[in-house]
Amino acid sequence: MSTEKKTVAIVGGSGYAGGEFLRLALGHPHLDVTQVTSERSAGMPVTLVHPNLRGRTNLKFRKAADLEAADIVVLALPHNSAAKRIAEFEAKGKTIIDLSADFRLKDPDVYRAVYGEDHPAPEKLSEWVYGNPELHREELRGATRIACAGCFATSVILALYPLLKLGVLLPKDVIATGLVGSSAAGASASESSHHPERAGSLRVYKPVGHRHTAEAQQELPGHFPIHLTAISTPRVRGILTTVQAWVPDGWSDKDVWSAYREVYGQEPFIRIVKVAKGIHRYPDPMLLDGTNFCDIGFEMDQDTGRVVLMSAIDNLVKGTAGHAIQSLNIAQGWEETTGLEFTGLHPA
Amino acid sequence: MSTEKKTVAIVGGSGYAGGEFLRLALGHPHLDVTQVTSERSAGMPVTLVHPNLRGRTNLKFRKAADLEAADIVVLALPHNSAAKRIAEFEAKGKTIIDLSADFRLKDPDVYRAVYGEDHPAPEKLSEWVYGNPELHREELRGATRIACAGCFATSVILALYPLLKLGVLLPKDVIATGLVGSSAAGASASESSHHPERAGSLRVYKPVGHRHTAEAQQELPGHFPIHLTAISTPRVRGILTTVQAWVPDGWSDKDVWSAYREVYGQEPFIRIVKVAKGIHRYPDPMLLDGTNFCDIGFEMDQDTGRVVLMSAIDNLVKGTAGHAIQSLNIAQGWEETTGLEFTGLHPA
Amino acid sequence: MSTEKKTVAIVGGSGYAGGEFLRLALGHPHLDVTQVTSERSAGMPVTLVHPNLRGRTNLKFRKAADLEAADIVVLALPHNSAAKRIAEFEAKGKTIIDLSADFRLKDPDVYRAVYGEDHPAPEKLSEWVYGNPELHREELRGATRIACAGCFATSVILALYPLLKLGVLLPKDVIATGLVGSSAAGASASESSHHPERAGSLRVYKPVGHRHTAEAQQELPGHFPIHLTAISTPRVRGILTTVQAWVPDGWSDKDVWSAYREVYGQEPFIRIVKVAKGIHRYPDPMLLDGTNFCDIGFEMDQDTGRVVLMSAIDNLVKGTAGHAIQSLNIAQGWEETTGLEFTGLHPA
Amino acid sequence: MSTEKKTVAIVGGSGYAGGEFLRLALGHPHLDVTQVTSERSAGMPVTLVHPNLRGRTNLKFRKAADLEAADIVVLALPHNSAAKRIAEFEAKGKTIIDLSADFRLKDPDVYRAVYGEDHPAPEKLSEWVYGNPELHREELRGATRIACAGCFATSVILALYPLLKLGVLLPKDVIATGLVGSSAAGASASESSHHPERAGSLRVYKPVGHRHTAEAQQELPGHFPIHLTAISTPRVRGILTTVQAWVPDGWSDKDVWSAYREVYGQEPFIRIVKVAKGIHRYPDPMLLDGTNFCDIGFEMDQDTGRVVLMSAIDNLVKGTAGHAIQSLNIAQGWEETTGLEFTGLHPA
Repeated sequence: MSTEKKTVAIVGGSGYAGGEFLRLALGHPHLDVTQVTSERSAGMPVTLVHPNLRGRTNLKFRKAADLEAADIVVLALPHNSAAKRIAEFEAKGKTIIDLSADFRLKDPDVYRAVYGEDHPAPEKLSEWVYGNPELHREELRGATRIACAGCFATSVILALYPLLKLGVLLPKDVIATGLVGSSAAGASASESSHHPERAGSLRVYKPVGHRHTAEAQQELPGHFPIHLTAISTPRVRGILTTVQAWVPDGWSDKDVWSAYREVYGQEPFIRIVKVAKGIHRYPDPMLLDGTNFCDIGFEMDQDTGRVVLMSAIDNLVKGTAGHAIQSLNIAQGWEETTGLEFTGLHPA
Repeated sequence: MSTEKKTVAIVGGSGYAGGEFLRLALGHPHLDVTQVTSERSAGMPVTLVHPNLRGRTNLKFRKAADLEAADIVVLALPHNSAAKRIAEFEAKGKTIIDLSADFRLKDPDVYRAVYGEDHPAPEKLSEWVYGNPELHREELRGATRIACAGCFATSVILALYPLLKLGVLLPKDVIATGLVGSSAAGASASESSHHPERAGSLRVYKPVGHRHTAEAQQELPGHFPIHLTAISTPRVRGILTTVQAWVPDGWSDKDVWSAYREVYGQEPFIRIVKVAKGIHRYPDPMLLDGTNFCDIGFEMDQDTGRVVLMSAIDNLVKGTAGHAIQSLNIAQGWEETTGLEFTGLHPA
Repeated sequence: MSTEKKTVAIVGGSGYAGGEFLRLALGHPHLDVTQVTSERSAGMPVTLVHPNLRGRTNLKFRKAADLEAADIVVLALPHNSAAKRIAEFEAKGKTIIDLSADFRLKDPDVYRAVYGEDHPAPEKLSEWVYGNPELHREELRGATRIACAGCFATSVILALYPLLKLGVLLPKDVIATGLVGSSAAGASASESSHHPERAGSLRVYKPVGHRHTAEAQQELPGHFPIHLTAISTPRVRGILTTVQAWVPDGWSDKDVWSAYREVYGQEPFIRIVKVAKGIHRYPDPMLLDGTNFCDIGFEMDQDTGRVVLMSAIDNLVKGTAGHAIQSLNIAQGWEETTGLEFTGLHPA
Repeated sequence: MSTEKKTVAIVGGSGYAGGEFLRLALGHPHLDVTQVTSERSAGMPVTLVHPNLRGRTNLKFRKAADLEAADIVVLALPHNSAAKRIAEFEAKGKTIIDLSADFRLKDPDVYRAVYGEDHPAPEKLSEWVYGNPELHREELRGATRIACAGCFATSVILALYPLLKLGVLLPKDVIATGLVGSSAAGASASESSHHPERAGSLRVYKPVGHRHTAEAQQELPGHFPIHLTAISTPRVRGILTTVQAWVPDGWSDKDVWSAYREVYGQEPFIRIVKVAKGIHRYPDPMLLDGTNFCDIGFEMDQDTGRVVLMSAIDNLVKGTAGHAIQSLNIAQGWEETTGLEFTGLHPA
């Protein structure tokens, strides 16, 4: 079987997103990671940066300039880096997966408005599939350009999508509040991520204008202004997002159940979590570290027609690298859950 | 000066609210705590339960049945316990401070709707002042019945009040999202507060129907339906609440600044926190442990007329015992900040 | 292959040890969990208690009285429960794995001294193999009675064993200091595990007289009094143990390296962690959640002949359920690493 | 009274030690902080860096070059900076308090061995008093040069001192294991303090050769080799140190009690914590954040003559700035507890 494996090169493999893709790819039966690049750590074993992989791999980082051909090239670069050099990477591999935001937005004008500069390769945007399997499974089959969906965007999109798909979301303001762990800010030390400043903090870091709002609006078109407030918490991984939305008069929990079951009933990585007993009644990122699940719950405020949706993911897995593997599995025609079997810990 | 001190009896002093009142009262120059009751711990030193007070007091718990007269009786009992026995406590002291929810709601019908049973002493409700100094300072002067405001209610009320007072809050749904530490659930061990189940958790525990909503609606009357979603976090103390509200077209941050300065400019315990530099730009409960501050920040989304308000408090101080001391200081004519000077730690 | 699977019954499956065995067994290709008992939760789905397994199993808890035959019976009962009822369990399955301390100590007198009562089935003690693969691999082959080693004992034993095996441990007092997460105290809520009391705590809970000392002394015989001080930390999982031991004059780090490589060089789950660069220089339980690794590091204080050994494990995996699976794999003749492939997360 | 206040200048006030001294000094009735320097933050309000002081002070940072005279100059500089410039600071104030390690060691040879370079001002070493009030109270009276004791050193020294003073410490190796929070590494962000790398970590960072060992050996002379292993934990503040020492045959807990009561019975900031009931039986840094207490506990292992001593402090208060204030109070003839009244929080 080893001879049938696809070779993988990870560009920018010293960060958390690249490291997580590496972890998942090393355990994936159809993937063979042959190259991992890091400008800063070139020449050093990847385990120096990702010590969880000790005993699992002997790979060393190389410079991106030394990249050789691979079946699959995974780009884990800072935003706006991949697009500028995309021709270079296209020359190295048939399939390209970008974990950054560079190819997610379809409209270059939106890109400019959100990221503050012109898109470096607007003519290529149409080649890319937005890497969200639940919304784009058919487009992903056979795809060779996958723009992995953003983590916050994923938590908002998956929470709202069934209401939109079924046409029952009322055209009122949608308020999303996202709580996130420190890994979302990346692997580089900074003052705001300094442990004494962060360990006990509950810090609103983006009350308005979060960039992922544009992704959510793109994927959930209609007259539903989506507002996202992002708050950092003392967790390391994980996102918990509450989304306040408005449904038709008279809707009950049962109606919401039906809607989510209808749309997500066959999804391998979405679990509807709304339990009447015990302490784990709603989604909780605590249970999702390392997993590709998106747990979704809800509660109706029947008096007002407001539904409180809740979604939880591991931002580095279902929010980044796991999402990418799931999309890749679909693109390559492999079993969709391959390499994503880890079920999560409890207690955790 | 000691002869002028007011004697204090704390009923239900083994919980966190009573313990915090005890801590603050022991450091208050005009108070002399002479009795602390606990049915479960009667006969034992209070420091067995509140080990931070070692070396600070030799008080022992007694049973409530052994309560003697005191100038001030502080009730730190479970909800619905104080009201049932209020005559008993009125016989012991001239001034009564209730830290529970029993006397906060003015309307017995609202009480019944929220707490699911008839109020045990509805005829007394009008005697009590709602213990929120920022809204009720004048009523508190000379007051002898103080119903200390709820912690979540305080975080919502103080965030919104200036907009309401100045008449600029638009009549649209207000969405409040409150993040809270584990101490808010009290001192009794339970499955949901078991450390392995809670330490890493981000858990929505009250998506709709939080009881403090009724307090907020009472104090902020008008056509502004307030919705509160409550989420537990791994912190021990603290509440961070974001409140999404709607202001007139064209409002900018500057307008919000003016409004909050106008209303809160002289408040000793409200700090407007909105800083352009550094990492501490908005309110963060991390900085407030042990303090009586309510830090308030905001950010306008000018395109939509939405303002994101943020408030942070220590739920046990500005949310409970500190609030009570502040109200008591006003009631007794003492300097309002007496005994509440602790400024908070950094790092923390 | 499914027809060849061994059936597994887990007795006492609502606790953390049983739950972790269940998680690992559900992912094990040669095991088929058919029964899980819990007196308190009988009739309820196991996912109510172990929510990480949602979507992974539909098993419901049953009462132990309803236990049916299985190939392998796993006992995850409180200490001193398994031994009293051992005949009952022997009637149900050929292979029995006990996760408690009941059959670990070979000498009933030692058992009495440590646990304060007579062993309920002393005549059976000789049938059991101490479930530590690194020390007892040969005895484990074909074994049908496996007494899974204690978590603290494992951390101490694996740290010291090479020095003892090679005969270089000097006969001086060995000081072990173990730091442990809250899951080690089990799934039952208690005052000391109440989140507000534990979240920020560094609490010595067993300065002297820890029961696992007897296990360590049994497995590491000689004139090396082992002293263990146990400290609880805010982590949920994990043990980090430092062991201060004494080696011959002139020993250097290189000598220690040689010793540990000689003894552990072929061990699939022991990694020697001593890195000159980066921030992950020594073992850290942070990297081991969910894994079966025991990471071991050391540093010589050459001036004094003291070596500081460090070992890290996940107390519920290498300290309990993973250790048990590894032992079972050996006993059954399966690949030793089967079902234990999870490599751990970073960041975590 | 204001006219009698002593003016204070804090040099290097943007770090945690300087910030903590500033916090305590602002609440001290006999001190008037008039200057705080920071090269990096000169011109900015101190509250930008120390946001807990918002509303408490309007001071701005200045450059050290702009330092003016003050009654008391507090040096909160990196190690080896104060001594090089000591003449400069002596010109500015009569009393100098150094929070660094520069003037703690009396013997320049020891300094060289520990810090790897010659002491810049060896001729001045004899002028300085080691700022540990419990050991040097008499020398501190009237002192104008105070070298504040190191935090780990303090935790070890105060744990052991009574045994040494009473001559009952046996001449065997003393093993100290110190657990510390992240604030001990200072305010500068680094890879090892990056929240995702630190939040879940239990990391031995100094298994052998900790520099504070030299301070402990200086203050506790005799044939008791002291070995210190330092471990970082997820707390922000606090040190918990266990010290394993050896006392005469037959010693019981009662003997240890007597010894510690005899030596520490009158100490205002040392509490002996050894409680038979409840969950707070031994010292725990959780209870000490912001306080100047050193809590000390112990447990005898009577079979072996080993005593396990435990000490807990807030590394930034009793380990640094509080210790300094206490020493200053003695030096100036003020009540020793002035400005150090905060009792700590529970829960915390």
